[in-house]
Amino acid sequence: MSTDRNKIITDTFKRFIRRGGISHLKKMVNKTHPADLSLIFRSLTLADQKKLFALIKDAEQKGYLFSELDKDIFLRLIEEMSVDEMVEILADMPSDDVADLLADIPEEKADEILERMHKEDSQTVENLLSYGEDTAGGIMVPDFIALKQDITAGDAIKAIQKDYIEVEMPFYLYVVDEYHKLVGISSLRQLVVVQPEKKLKEFMSKDIISVTTDMDQEEVARIVAKYNILAVPVTDHSAKLIGIVTVDDVIDIIRSEATEDILKMAGAGEEYIETKSVIKSTKIRLPWLFASCVGGIIASFIIGKFGKVVSEYIYLAAFIPVIAGMGGNIGTQSSTIVVRGIATRRIDIRDFWKVVLKELSIGFILGSFYGVIIGVIAEIKYEASFLGVAVGLAVVSSMSVAALVGSIVPMLLVKLNIDPAVATGPFVTTAIDIIGIFLYLTIASMFILGI
Amino acid sequence: MSTDRNKIITDTFKRFIRRGGISHLKKMVNKTHPADLSLIFRSLTLADQKKLFALIKDAEQKGYLFSELDKDIFLRLIEEMSVDEMVEILADMPSDDVADLLADIPEEKADEILERMHKEDSQTVENLLSYGEDTAGGIMVPDFIALKQDITAGDAIKAIQKDYIEVEMPFYLYVVDEYHKLVGISSLRQLVVVQPEKKLKEFMSKDIISVTTDMDQEEVARIVAKYNILAVPVTDHSAKLIGIVTVDDVIDIIRSEATEDILKMAGAGEEYIETKSVIKSTKIRLPWLFASCVGGIIASFIIGKFGKVVSEYIYLAAFIPVIAGMGGNIGTQSSTIVVRGIATRRIDIRDFWKVVLKELSIGFILGSFYGVIIGVIAEIKYEASFLGVAVGLAVVSSMSVAALVGSIVPMLLVKLNIDPAVATGPFVTTAIDIIGIFLYLTIASMFILGI
Repeated sequence: MSTDRNKIITDTFKRFIRRGGISHLKKMVNKTHPADLSLIFRSLTLADQKKLFALIKDAEQKGYLFSELDKDIFLRLIEEMSVDEMVEILADMPSDDVADLLADIPEEKADEILERMHKEDSQTVENLLSYGEDTAGGIMVPDFIALKQDITAGDAIKAIQKDYIEVEMPFYLYVVDEYHKLVGISSLRQLVVVQPEKKLKEFMSKDIISVTTDMDQEEVARIVAKYNILAVPVTDHSAKLIGIVTVDDVIDIIRSEATEDILKMAGAGEEYIETKSVIKSTKIRLPWLFASCVGGIIASFIIGKFGKVVSEYIYLAAFIPVIAGMGGNIGTQSSTIVVRGIATRRIDIRDFWKVVLKELSIGFILGSFYGVIIGVIAEIKYEASFLGVAVGLAVVSSMSVAALVGSIVPMLLVKLNIDPAVATGPFVTTAIDIIGIFLYLTIASMFILGI
Repeated sequence: MSTDRNKIITDTFKRFIRRGGISHLKKMVNKTHPADLSLIFRSLTLADQKKLFALIKDAEQKGYLFSELDKDIFLRLIEEMSVDEMVEILADMPSDDVADLLADIPEEKADEILERMHKEDSQTVENLLSYGEDTAGGIMVPDFIALKQDITAGDAIKAIQKDYIEVEMPFYLYVVDEYHKLVGISSLRQLVVVQPEKKLKEFMSKDIISVTTDMDQEEVARIVAKYNILAVPVTDHSAKLIGIVTVDDVIDIIRSEATEDILKMAGAGEEYIETKSVIKSTKIRLPWLFASCVGGIIASFIIGKFGKVVSEYIYLAAFIPVIAGMGGNIGTQSSTIVVRGIATRRIDIRDFWKVVLKELSIGFILGSFYGVIIGVIAEIKYEASFLGVAVGLAVVSSMSVAALVGSIVPMLLVKLNIDPAVATGPFVTTAIDIIGIFLYLTIASMFILGI
């Protein structure tokens, strides 16, 4: 749905809510796709959200909406909802979505719901909940076609029609041995093409791409994206097939990881916060600015330390911003390229020195280029023979150091198992500011004392 | 494949290339997935790439590798390849991939190849090439199952087994009327469940999500992601069904758009450049730093203008970096949140004033918070009664202005049809630097003249 259509539908809903056109609302809410409803919910008050939600007839539709809603909207919506109503809605949902929702709500309520659910369903959900939320186990669905390797293509078709009619994505057939270990893969299309009496093991593909339950979801997403597959099978520690991760969940992971990385890089939190209140947004953004505040104060102390030189040659102060700015910007370039390179696997952190050396070279070349330009301008403007050289050298060295720091820090963070995306945020730029200013004033002092 | 496995395979390949173990190499290269080969090719010389490529037996495998290779590697690899060899390889590829490759290579060679291809194939490819590269038409495949609405489920199954056995993603059945207009959607699963004598139009779903050939690929990707579908049908201006966009292409779009946005936000180009040479990378990054250079020089002139005040109260200079830094960082937060919000459709630019007002409020609150902290420190450190107040006020106003500029600029760019991602790059931070410094020195002068 384009933004235009979205806006129009939202406005229509709002109008009917205002006017109390219940019968119209009922018709509309039951005809609108849950993905669209979730967008509409974003701009409604809690009372209106509840009103609209109550008009949805189908428990299945309600469940679908649950999994589409923003987390905070979902939590507020269900706050006063009875356990009975929750159980009724969750009963119709895929178990992986149930597990995701239960992981988000208060534990006490989640336990109560689990107790009331059908034994079999709650068992599946509890199994899913036992895996880390961000692992293959946490995002897989236990909803796939698994057939024994010794049955024939003809029997396989019959088995699918009989036992697997409910499977949501029936295009891959996973072939298992007697211990339920994954041994091959085939497809509906292949079943139809081969002779009906052929056994699965005779024509299945043995080139299996699979993941284990504990693999990080980002890695799972990368594999699905790389091999252009629609689902990847998940095996447990004994190679038993226990679930699949489907491509629609992979898309959600790729999008939210990109958003997370972008926000972290800008030092603006981890989750998207625009829809949150001013106070909440402020709280999330406040600590990220702290680094920049402390760094700035340190910079002011450094400048204070060089107070005598600066007060004698007052135009020295004029070039502090350009030196800090050039360093900060090239540092951001370097760290962004390295962070994104690591995320998309274009950079291997075992090539540490190769990457660092390359960034340092680029920093030095760009630093020399801009150093000459800025140095010449400083010289012309203030006609102080040492100023041009000092400014130029400061630009070269601060830009080289910035490229160095910008490339080293994210790789070090990876080695320390910290998300490198934080490296491009205020921390690194502030550190580079301080280093640049220190280098500049030191170089300038040396020239002045040398004169 | 994890980085570890990747590294191991690459090293093994390199070892065999060094030792000239042709028979081993042959076996390995034909057993390795093209997606993995494309990673290995990144760290080989052109000569070794050619050697390895020549060892691939299957034309189909070669074609698959073509579409997985980085664009620059692909172009170098085929530079001296004969048109005959190219035609042989492309003949086995899906026509959308052929169109993508031909769009990249020199026009003369592309025309020659098109002439030599089978009439029918080249017609399809030429049709695809006629759509914009970044539109639904440019990324669709003409490879789908379309059935007339009046045939029965039983006949539909027969038709699929007979005519559509080659279709790569056979899970959606598109139902069309006599003019080949899309009127409904069904699935393989549904065909098997219903009575064989039922007509398609009796059980097909009429809730069709489709896109038009000229829709931007980002918008197409958003739709596929939002509705959790595996493919979206593409119709032309007369509502005729002419192709589908599949989820694997959508994943590639989402990933590369995220990379593009991240790089633009950091002012580091548009395409990923880490794999390029130092000289190439330097060339791409150089112009982005120009804004920061010009801005820095303007800042130096502004400081120069206030030279008299600064030279009298030398500690004024010490707080220039912290004021510029705080403004720059909160400006980056604001612009990043707005840019990503627009990209993920969480922000509607028709809510212009709502968004701007919210950012301004946040900027003011955070500015007041940090203004007090930094002001108090300035006061304590230098014991100049006006300095603390001037620094504090400058922080508040520069952070408020930064949040304002950071949120307005990306939305204005969208209105001007310019990618808003450039707004978080050096341009905005530099502008904010200048404004912040100007505000600071103006406020300080007023205090000094007022004393």
